[in-house]
Amino acid sequence: MARVAIVGGAGYIGGELLRLLLGHPEAEVAAVTSTRLAGRRVDGAHPNLRGLTDLTFVDPGSLEEYDALFLATPHTETMGRMTGYAKIATTIFDLSADFRLRDPEVFRRYYGLPHEAVDLLPEFVLGLPELHRDRLRAADRVAVPGCMATAGILALRPAAAAGLIEPEVTIDARTGSSGSGATAGPENLHAERSGAMRVFAPTRHRHEAEIGQETGLSVRMSATGVEAVRGVQVLCRARLAPGADERAVRAAYRAAYAAEPFVRVVAQKRGLYRLPEPKILSGSNFCDVGFAADGERALVLVAALDNLVKGGAGNAVQCMNVRYGWPERAGLTFAGLHPN
Amino acid sequence: MARVAIVGGAGYIGGELLRLLLGHPEAEVAAVTSTRLAGRRVDGAHPNLRGLTDLTFVDPGSLEEYDALFLATPHTETMGRMTGYAKIATTIFDLSADFRLRDPEVFRRYYGLPHEAVDLLPEFVLGLPELHRDRLRAADRVAVPGCMATAGILALRPAAAAGLIEPEVTIDARTGSSGSGATAGPENLHAERSGAMRVFAPTRHRHEAEIGQETGLSVRMSATGVEAVRGVQVLCRARLAPGADERAVRAAYRAAYAAEPFVRVVAQKRGLYRLPEPKILSGSNFCDVGFAADGERALVLVAALDNLVKGGAGNAVQCMNVRYGWPERAGLTFAGLHPN
Amino acid sequence: MARVAIVGGAGYIGGELLRLLLGHPEAEVAAVTSTRLAGRRVDGAHPNLRGLTDLTFVDPGSLEEYDALFLATPHTETMGRMTGYAKIATTIFDLSADFRLRDPEVFRRYYGLPHEAVDLLPEFVLGLPELHRDRLRAADRVAVPGCMATAGILALRPAAAAGLIEPEVTIDARTGSSGSGATAGPENLHAERSGAMRVFAPTRHRHEAEIGQETGLSVRMSATGVEAVRGVQVLCRARLAPGADERAVRAAYRAAYAAEPFVRVVAQKRGLYRLPEPKILSGSNFCDVGFAADGERALVLVAALDNLVKGGAGNAVQCMNVRYGWPERAGLTFAGLHPN
Amino acid sequence: MARVAIVGGAGYIGGELLRLLLGHPEAEVAAVTSTRLAGRRVDGAHPNLRGLTDLTFVDPGSLEEYDALFLATPHTETMGRMTGYAKIATTIFDLSADFRLRDPEVFRRYYGLPHEAVDLLPEFVLGLPELHRDRLRAADRVAVPGCMATAGILALRPAAAAGLIEPEVTIDARTGSSGSGATAGPENLHAERSGAMRVFAPTRHRHEAEIGQETGLSVRMSATGVEAVRGVQVLCRARLAPGADERAVRAAYRAAYAAEPFVRVVAQKRGLYRLPEPKILSGSNFCDVGFAADGERALVLVAALDNLVKGGAGNAVQCMNVRYGWPERAGLTFAGLHPN
Repeated sequence: MARVAIVGGAGYIGGELLRLLLGHPEAEVAAVTSTRLAGRRVDGAHPNLRGLTDLTFVDPGSLEEYDALFLATPHTETMGRMTGYAKIATTIFDLSADFRLRDPEVFRRYYGLPHEAVDLLPEFVLGLPELHRDRLRAADRVAVPGCMATAGILALRPAAAAGLIEPEVTIDARTGSSGSGATAGPENLHAERSGAMRVFAPTRHRHEAEIGQETGLSVRMSATGVEAVRGVQVLCRARLAPGADERAVRAAYRAAYAAEPFVRVVAQKRGLYRLPEPKILSGSNFCDVGFAADGERALVLVAALDNLVKGGAGNAVQCMNVRYGWPERAGLTFAGLHPN
Repeated sequence: MARVAIVGGAGYIGGELLRLLLGHPEAEVAAVTSTRLAGRRVDGAHPNLRGLTDLTFVDPGSLEEYDALFLATPHTETMGRMTGYAKIATTIFDLSADFRLRDPEVFRRYYGLPHEAVDLLPEFVLGLPELHRDRLRAADRVAVPGCMATAGILALRPAAAAGLIEPEVTIDARTGSSGSGATAGPENLHAERSGAMRVFAPTRHRHEAEIGQETGLSVRMSATGVEAVRGVQVLCRARLAPGADERAVRAAYRAAYAAEPFVRVVAQKRGLYRLPEPKILSGSNFCDVGFAADGERALVLVAALDNLVKGGAGNAVQCMNVRYGWPERAGLTFAGLHPN
Repeated sequence: MARVAIVGGAGYIGGELLRLLLGHPEAEVAAVTSTRLAGRRVDGAHPNLRGLTDLTFVDPGSLEEYDALFLATPHTETMGRMTGYAKIATTIFDLSADFRLRDPEVFRRYYGLPHEAVDLLPEFVLGLPELHRDRLRAADRVAVPGCMATAGILALRPAAAAGLIEPEVTIDARTGSSGSGATAGPENLHAERSGAMRVFAPTRHRHEAEIGQETGLSVRMSATGVEAVRGVQVLCRARLAPGADERAVRAAYRAAYAAEPFVRVVAQKRGLYRLPEPKILSGSNFCDVGFAADGERALVLVAALDNLVKGGAGNAVQCMNVRYGWPERAGLTFAGLHPN
Repeated sequence: MARVAIVGGAGYIGGELLRLLLGHPEAEVAAVTSTRLAGRRVDGAHPNLRGLTDLTFVDPGSLEEYDALFLATPHTETMGRMTGYAKIATTIFDLSADFRLRDPEVFRRYYGLPHEAVDLLPEFVLGLPELHRDRLRAADRVAVPGCMATAGILALRPAAAAGLIEPEVTIDARTGSSGSGATAGPENLHAERSGAMRVFAPTRHRHEAEIGQETGLSVRMSATGVEAVRGVQVLCRARLAPGADERAVRAAYRAAYAAEPFVRVVAQKRGLYRLPEPKILSGSNFCDVGFAADGERALVLVAALDNLVKGGAGNAVQCMNVRYGWPERAGLTFAGLHPN
């Protein structure tokens, strides 16, 4: 049993961490922080947890010592506090963007300010078990990747690693509204966001940096908000390398993900759900990955996940399971709903 | 041609007034105010108007003189400014709630503070042509009713006036999110409001006071937010009076609304759209009204409208048409969309 | 470990039974039938189950013997086959409507044809543990109630049982589209059903019969389809009995549901989720119940649930847990999602 | 005044033609056909038209002679009947796909069967006034382009024509559910289609052929169904040609569309609606077009429209206006709604 604390528990990622960790057979949630809601019941912010917990939020300043910390704290504000966090917990799962990019110059380019803890960067392992499982078994500093980054990396990595695609790819990402968080602004008002197809990042979405780092590809990525609360889907386009074809792609993906508990290859020729679709993944930790050849030289790759689960809290819990040697599916058995 | 101004033009009702008045054959929009956006183009706030107008918002303090003012100003803040508005326009169409209730004591009970302009109340005519057309032809102070009130009144009035129902009725109202306005709070964040069935007013929704006033009935009304941007639907329950039956109800509604340009009786025995439904009314000024007997003694009545059009801006324009003797459908010819 | 079979596994209730039973610690799904899809993989019809099962559908004629049968078969077609089902399983959980109503005359009135197995009716216990837990511990014929019926009964029963309300109540039910099933007609086409507020049953919705039977109240119920896939909400109106008030109501509900694993009293004075709302219940087996007094004599009661879980498959699994003496929450621990 | 008939009036495009033509100042709808609904009122199929028309559907066999025919008939079934249609009307606006592609071999490749009226192909002018206005002034055979094709062509044509982009482009198209028509299959059931992000055409969507033909570009196009009833959005990716930059692109688009009544350039640096978004275009005939440079060499272009209006019926009416020399905006003045 591990005693864990969640820092930044009032937001959507924080709530999802709570949901998953309260149901985890090996973890005990010892503290959840919220500066704004300190002293209030957590089920006031997360009504789905009514009857399942009597926890109240505490002020971050009152944290003591824990086996593990889960940081659901804002980008660019987390790096400056990391030394402090390290003093109160053995293992840290950071869900902010601050320690995902190994190159501080790339960080500066995408986040607009210099990195404040460059010396700590080498301590972090990217929290993607499909790529870094072995290192995660011993990692005490884990940087959980972004939601679209996870989808993009899992969509592209096997093809890239096997040399089946040319290095220049484009990604068209679509996302539900929960990615904007619980304190989103007027652009997330229901009347504005409902039924939207909003190209909020026509170019250079931040997550393209993580995807480039993890796949070695040169990535151009746009992001569009569509009508959904949860869910991310990426549609990637690549050129097939000389000699590569769809059969080779299929073999590479089957091999890469055959033993993965949370990645399913979904690439059928027909049928309603023949390619990955996020709506049936809500609440689950699956990332579905598929592809289709576009003629002889081009390839379309698609991945889908729940941005708050495999794209955030669930992936962090999976990393914890790897780190502690627990069954990798512990606390993550929810199948997703159909219809939904 | 009438020179009109819109006060409070940055909100959703203001935008809808703009859309309708810019397309009106007899009106010229001479000014639109917004304290917050003064100096900015109106199509920045209302992107559907791009290419249709070069107007910019002006500060309310810069208003001059107009034939008519449309007030899309906040409840409880409008009454104190009415004397000032009266100095700059002959005719005033007030879309706030402040002058709808004739009895200031009822106002106090539902709005929680005393009425500040009791002496002006008798000058106002309720802006519902279906009930007050004759008085509206000469009215220079028009209080446009609330969205749910309009639906409820039009659903119940013919039955009440003909003595076909007992005086105690209940209303279950459902509404889209645009009724909360363009500056709504966190409860209207997309992730919270999407797919909601939120009973935000289990009892005593404010609009029940208007319905009671206009129908003479004793009304209990709840309101539930459901997934839609535009649209209000009321489902009313009444007891049939002795001797009344569905045939008499049908005759009364056919008679009451036969000549109305914007009320349609929709009460079929079968079919997909056999009772009023708001989704096909978006953008239109129709209020559809229907009913079904529940056994021999009970009656269910249903009405639907677009809260921003027949429930607000469109109804105000219809009142203007009546007031100026223009064709009542001028500027209000949009049919609504199917599918939508 | 119990060997169970699902009859009618291709539909939405069938899929949900599969999801829950595949994850149940004490049950083994030995067979799933579908006449139409016999021989095909079940994850073709239920894509959320990919990677979780290799089951294929079998023809109903090939069923053997099981500890328990779950019948997700059509209304009015199940009663004629019940004798056959009884031969192949000790315990039967029937999710059709055929054995819910004790009085065959009431059945005839609501379903339009005579009951074909009147002699079997007394063998059935209504599958609502909150009302019939003791009888369910030994029941081998369980008729699982309808989705809106479950919500209505749980909303009204404590007040009715305690004599706190007058016997005449009205119910306005709202429902998502999944209640129409996986083979629904053109009225359930997305373009028609999306954003709907469709009063498909203005009067005499079938489930009012079950609610009347279980509460002793005289019920008038309408049903409206609103935009959601999963979710049912009922808003009930009753008169408070002489001497009753909101405090007494609260006490009665707290007492009635204090020990229930799946009923939560949600009746707060303020807050975003102060009354029951289905969107946070998707996938969970909770039924949330709340209320608000409307002045001194009237009461509004609200309940919400996921129509496929507590309104169907989940409730059936809960009944199985009761019948076999397993922990009542076994296989039903999913908390629901927020936001969703 | 022109007497027009609509062939195939029961579907969504047919209904939209009716809505627009009933409100058109110069057209009289003389007949509307439906084999299935002959003899039934048109407002039974199109409930938004209640009170606006008393027309009934007639059998196609009973058509007489008209000034113009609008064909909302199925792809691949229209070509074989064209000779017959030509006998009963001077001018034909064909909304099927059958005469859009000049090269019958391309038609065969995308539609899977040989063209049956190759000799008629040269008579047709593609119904896109922005490209072919001069020829449309005298055209009696007009092939109205597909919804995504119109968006793609209007997004890409100015850049292609000015040589600002390299010839290889990719397009990711998103569409609402109404594009599947009123007789869509189980994949369009609300419970399946709601909240979808369904890549139904990962490669080779048929409309890429039209886009290639009209722009001279080599197009790879995918199509994804997202949650909306109406609305199409395309996100196109191209390489900037040597010497080209965003400034040159902006100049080209401003010039190309400056005089167009229904194309707006929407390419702002910030703001909620800075790039084209279909939700504010529902019911309107606008196509909004925008772009953003992605570094120094790449360009993202975005276009949005209502698939049933500028993507179909509205565009056909615009072509009629051009053909008859009427004001091009006649009958097409609806602005679109915000919020919506």
